[in-house]
Amino acid sequence: MSKKIPVGVLGATGAVGQKFVKLLENHPWFEISEVAASDRSAGKKYREAANWRQYSPIPGSITGKLVKPCEPHLDCQVVFSGLDSSVAGEVEENFARAGYIVLSNSKNHRTDDDVPLLVPEVNHDHLELIGVQRKLRGWSGAIVTNPNCSVAGLVMPLAPLDRSFGLSRLVVTTLQALSGAGYPGPSAIDVLGNVLPYIGGGEEEKVQAEPVKILGKLQGESIKPAGFKISAHTNRVDVEDGHMACVSVEFDRKASPEDAARVIAGFTSLPQELRLPTAPERPIIVTEERDRPQPRFDRDAGAGMSAVVGRIRPCPVFDLRFVVLSHNTVRGAAGAAILNAELMKATGYLD
Amino acid sequence: MSKKIPVGVLGATGAVGQKFVKLLENHPWFEISEVAASDRSAGKKYREAANWRQYSPIPGSITGKLVKPCEPHLDCQVVFSGLDSSVAGEVEENFARAGYIVLSNSKNHRTDDDVPLLVPEVNHDHLELIGVQRKLRGWSGAIVTNPNCSVAGLVMPLAPLDRSFGLSRLVVTTLQALSGAGYPGPSAIDVLGNVLPYIGGGEEEKVQAEPVKILGKLQGESIKPAGFKISAHTNRVDVEDGHMACVSVEFDRKASPEDAARVIAGFTSLPQELRLPTAPERPIIVTEERDRPQPRFDRDAGAGMSAVVGRIRPCPVFDLRFVVLSHNTVRGAAGAAILNAELMKATGYLD
Amino acid sequence: MSKKIPVGVLGATGAVGQKFVKLLENHPWFEISEVAASDRSAGKKYREAANWRQYSPIPGSITGKLVKPCEPHLDCQVVFSGLDSSVAGEVEENFARAGYIVLSNSKNHRTDDDVPLLVPEVNHDHLELIGVQRKLRGWSGAIVTNPNCSVAGLVMPLAPLDRSFGLSRLVVTTLQALSGAGYPGPSAIDVLGNVLPYIGGGEEEKVQAEPVKILGKLQGESIKPAGFKISAHTNRVDVEDGHMACVSVEFDRKASPEDAARVIAGFTSLPQELRLPTAPERPIIVTEERDRPQPRFDRDAGAGMSAVVGRIRPCPVFDLRFVVLSHNTVRGAAGAAILNAELMKATGYLD
Amino acid sequence: MSKKIPVGVLGATGAVGQKFVKLLENHPWFEISEVAASDRSAGKKYREAANWRQYSPIPGSITGKLVKPCEPHLDCQVVFSGLDSSVAGEVEENFARAGYIVLSNSKNHRTDDDVPLLVPEVNHDHLELIGVQRKLRGWSGAIVTNPNCSVAGLVMPLAPLDRSFGLSRLVVTTLQALSGAGYPGPSAIDVLGNVLPYIGGGEEEKVQAEPVKILGKLQGESIKPAGFKISAHTNRVDVEDGHMACVSVEFDRKASPEDAARVIAGFTSLPQELRLPTAPERPIIVTEERDRPQPRFDRDAGAGMSAVVGRIRPCPVFDLRFVVLSHNTVRGAAGAAILNAELMKATGYLD
Repeated sequence: MSKKIPVGVLGATGAVGQKFVKLLENHPWFEISEVAASDRSAGKKYREAANWRQYSPIPGSITGKLVKPCEPHLDCQVVFSGLDSSVAGEVEENFARAGYIVLSNSKNHRTDDDVPLLVPEVNHDHLELIGVQRKLRGWSGAIVTNPNCSVAGLVMPLAPLDRSFGLSRLVVTTLQALSGAGYPGPSAIDVLGNVLPYIGGGEEEKVQAEPVKILGKLQGESIKPAGFKISAHTNRVDVEDGHMACVSVEFDRKASPEDAARVIAGFTSLPQELRLPTAPERPIIVTEERDRPQPRFDRDAGAGMSAVVGRIRPCPVFDLRFVVLSHNTVRGAAGAAILNAELMKATGYLD
Repeated sequence: MSKKIPVGVLGATGAVGQKFVKLLENHPWFEISEVAASDRSAGKKYREAANWRQYSPIPGSITGKLVKPCEPHLDCQVVFSGLDSSVAGEVEENFARAGYIVLSNSKNHRTDDDVPLLVPEVNHDHLELIGVQRKLRGWSGAIVTNPNCSVAGLVMPLAPLDRSFGLSRLVVTTLQALSGAGYPGPSAIDVLGNVLPYIGGGEEEKVQAEPVKILGKLQGESIKPAGFKISAHTNRVDVEDGHMACVSVEFDRKASPEDAARVIAGFTSLPQELRLPTAPERPIIVTEERDRPQPRFDRDAGAGMSAVVGRIRPCPVFDLRFVVLSHNTVRGAAGAAILNAELMKATGYLD
Repeated sequence: MSKKIPVGVLGATGAVGQKFVKLLENHPWFEISEVAASDRSAGKKYREAANWRQYSPIPGSITGKLVKPCEPHLDCQVVFSGLDSSVAGEVEENFARAGYIVLSNSKNHRTDDDVPLLVPEVNHDHLELIGVQRKLRGWSGAIVTNPNCSVAGLVMPLAPLDRSFGLSRLVVTTLQALSGAGYPGPSAIDVLGNVLPYIGGGEEEKVQAEPVKILGKLQGESIKPAGFKISAHTNRVDVEDGHMACVSVEFDRKASPEDAARVIAGFTSLPQELRLPTAPERPIIVTEERDRPQPRFDRDAGAGMSAVVGRIRPCPVFDLRFVVLSHNTVRGAAGAAILNAELMKATGYLD
Repeated sequence: MSKKIPVGVLGATGAVGQKFVKLLENHPWFEISEVAASDRSAGKKYREAANWRQYSPIPGSITGKLVKPCEPHLDCQVVFSGLDSSVAGEVEENFARAGYIVLSNSKNHRTDDDVPLLVPEVNHDHLELIGVQRKLRGWSGAIVTNPNCSVAGLVMPLAPLDRSFGLSRLVVTTLQALSGAGYPGPSAIDVLGNVLPYIGGGEEEKVQAEPVKILGKLQGESIKPAGFKISAHTNRVDVEDGHMACVSVEFDRKASPEDAARVIAGFTSLPQELRLPTAPERPIIVTEERDRPQPRFDRDAGAGMSAVVGRIRPCPVFDLRFVVLSHNTVRGAAGAAILNAELMKATGYLD
């Protein structure tokens, strides 16, 4: 019998859910014991319920598994949620209330005061909010969230830059991949040879709000938001995977491009020390090539868990400019939640 | 016999040159008497020398025309230059010295103190630099330039905004079309499902420098540069035509989105008053749709001569944000030079 | 008061319906008096009901028009139907029964024995089936259909080739544009850098069946199908507009590529003689360039009503090979139905 | 000291050469001892000479290696040639004459009577031509070629079909990826939203000629070409990797789709028996999904060495139709040559 921790996937047939199924195949610590989805899928075998869109086949242990409804009667204590935000809020609460640890990729609870918005390299201490959450809500389980897919990559270089130079203001323009819109996402005839300068669901608000919480300081029972301000312009481009952001940043203290490159490239943190299975060796890779990072060539760095930063150069308006790219469905979704679970396991939260 | 003004096209077989040939077909004031190109093309008929890439056929009057070398022995007094910047500098000077009026699309002379960097709606008074140029250089002709293809659209809303609210600082991120790179431009396998976060030839420097000259004030014999600062991030996307820019802007005076929309939408200028043939009725179109402008749907506004502005909204870091799009090979290249020539004709510079 | 014939558009808010609205703007003979659509749209103004996706604005006379339900109480005698095949069958019958002339773009009645499947250049005599249809069904109106979007271009060269050399067998592989799938059509993430080797809705069957009826001979009260056989392979490619087909063809009589090019390029027919407004001067354009036709460069030939044929060359298996391209939403949909109506007007069927 | 066989790569900096470098990293039998390229690259370190376009980094053992000229003084006995056909003919002969075994991906010698055009699963016995070649040319080395990138996948299902049912005639239409054109290949502005119905370099002739040799029978000292005929239509589409072909085929003997699927899916051959390292477990995968194979989803089947066949169905003109897809730079280029070398090693030709 396996000694791995059994986990469930909520919304397992959707785009993020499929990525969970794929990334958890052969995971050294976790194994999927349950797949759950909407009533439309529940009761079917996984291979019949899921319109599988990954490049590798459905893992053999999952393909015939019965899809359960998203109700807190799953045979596991940990669930990964790839649920759509239209239903995630209540379902995730039901699970947490019933004692499950919920690793959520949805926006619903990210900005709740007592819910960690966790990036293990950046704010692992925010896990302490779990105690607050349990106390306030009387839950035996907990909800832990990961950031929006654009924010996940953006905060990687922001963390060491803030620590070293003090972030003051940023203007961020994103060029986001199709997969960030879920499946089916935009119509081909709408994006062929085109750019959509708007992303629905409050994307710009998320990019402006989440980094301030992630880089906030835990003070007693709450997070004191970081003091910097972000202006976000979000765009959809005809790219499969990989969200790119062009960033102009103002610091409290002087920073040369070389200084910045050094602190970014040298950034490692607790997940690397703990050698968490999904943690990339180098959380951020700095490229010297003048036309990189590029989505197609750099999204898979660190198995999709590294952010790639390039074009660090002075900014005529603020202090520095750079480009950052990360894989939006790995570091920006399923991989992020799995890394969160690994951190929780390694720090005793899953015992 | 025609009463139209005979004009020549330098670099007539290239991408910009072809656009001149196309846009000048049936022009009410000008007609092409001469096509000139590099030694490789000179001596051939136009249809044999040009790898014609426009959607309409080569105009009948041009297809069999003999391509001449780019030497100042053309039978016309006005030349449009679509020459590559590697040769444009000297060739254009030769023509101006020999008495030709040169409408140049090249970067070589744009920032010369005595050369107008002309956008007829914005700085028609800069044409007075021609007198300075002739005096200083002893030329009987003159060089008049139009801006970089990204700048041409960007300065359209900046002009009324600067006049009304005083521009202070801008962060501009562009998503530029393939045609801006000339022909053949980027390889398909490099840009399919990808974004290139770098454009060669000093693109970002041009976007930062040119608006400051264009919006500068003519004082005596020189232009006093405008006082604002620009930070530019330039990207290449897999789009055929239409350069888009996401802009965050700080003003000297308060401006609401409604104020800004009003001054932008209401902007008209001398070319509209003079009813210049290539001048769009509305230099800037403001769209209310939340996901516009888009390159494929908005680049042809005003026959490619209008800029389209959308998503005017507050900026958490500066004052306002918006998106501007314009057709990079019409308003951003050949159409711009033709409008410049029309302004010169209407104001007596071609008599 | 206008002397134009008032016409209605059924399914006016959909992709084909919008094309009808666009192509009928400024039509010399017809003007839209009514727009009708599903219950979801009925009762709204057109601009609110239609998600307008054309490049030019909604015609001023249509934008505020009230959308009616698709019931035979419209104030006109002629209706163009861009209805989806899921509803077109019954709705179109209701209109024809009530005395309307229905120009249908749907597949539902195309293969009915008593319904003309009309391509005015090819089988204008099939209009005589209207008499049969009325007699059989007791209708005062009639249904006249145009072919499937791939077939519309394919039959253009087949007609003169069949007449001159006798078609025997064909293998046809299509590369079809996104717009052929209606809106929204395929998801961007499914077709980016990809090809879909299957088109639903019985596409291959249509390509195999319709040409045999179109090129059939009217004998008494029915069409005797042509004797040739077609094998169709249909593919979806990431192209906006323009269906391409690679054709290998066997003839009854010998034909050199030069012979074939001559009869194809020389093909004109009744619509050209009658100078029908939508009829292209040249129904088929033969290109000599070795890498043409191409969708982006050739789909607009003859304002989208000409087929472009290239690469006519010997076939090692059959007799000849060639490539044919036509605009799938003009010659292959709305333009086809309008040309049908023009033929009917010119030959007295609308009096 | 390594016991692996040292090999050289000719044209190592080009697109095919880079694929050799990538695929030979960690090869169990071969290791690259030499990289050679044109005079422009010779003398530089590999990382400086190659514009590396693979998704994984340059292998550590190659990155600093000195690029040699393509002259037969390399320290190895086996060379893989990714040379352009403009130079491959003579260079490869020089190497073979000097005693090297040349695994060539170029077209130059493919149709020479005494040169194997080898697909290990299909015609491994053709290796015997090496003896003929050596005798005729007096060489101590030899040239062994692999097929054109489109042919490599096409012949996979043709082999078992021919054996079981006897091929008589085929019409083949390809939709080929950008990478088949080498680097840089087509311009983005030429292929965006477009299809090119022509591929230069005699592509259609290769598709028509090579399968007839590959499926020919070795008789004494020569290959008797197979008796079937092919008509090829070749197209370039905006796809990164993966050549697709739509095939209509006539047999000598009756074959149902089920029969065909069975013999195709069951096909294995000597490389599978010998467990050659690069041989896929299943040379051909038959998919039941109605809209597959697709380039993006199926090109990596069997690590790029399996062909994927789908849509096997009756053909109204011939007997059957199907779609076949294979990875053009793996099974269709570098992987094919490596598999050829493995077969030669396993059968004693490299001792």
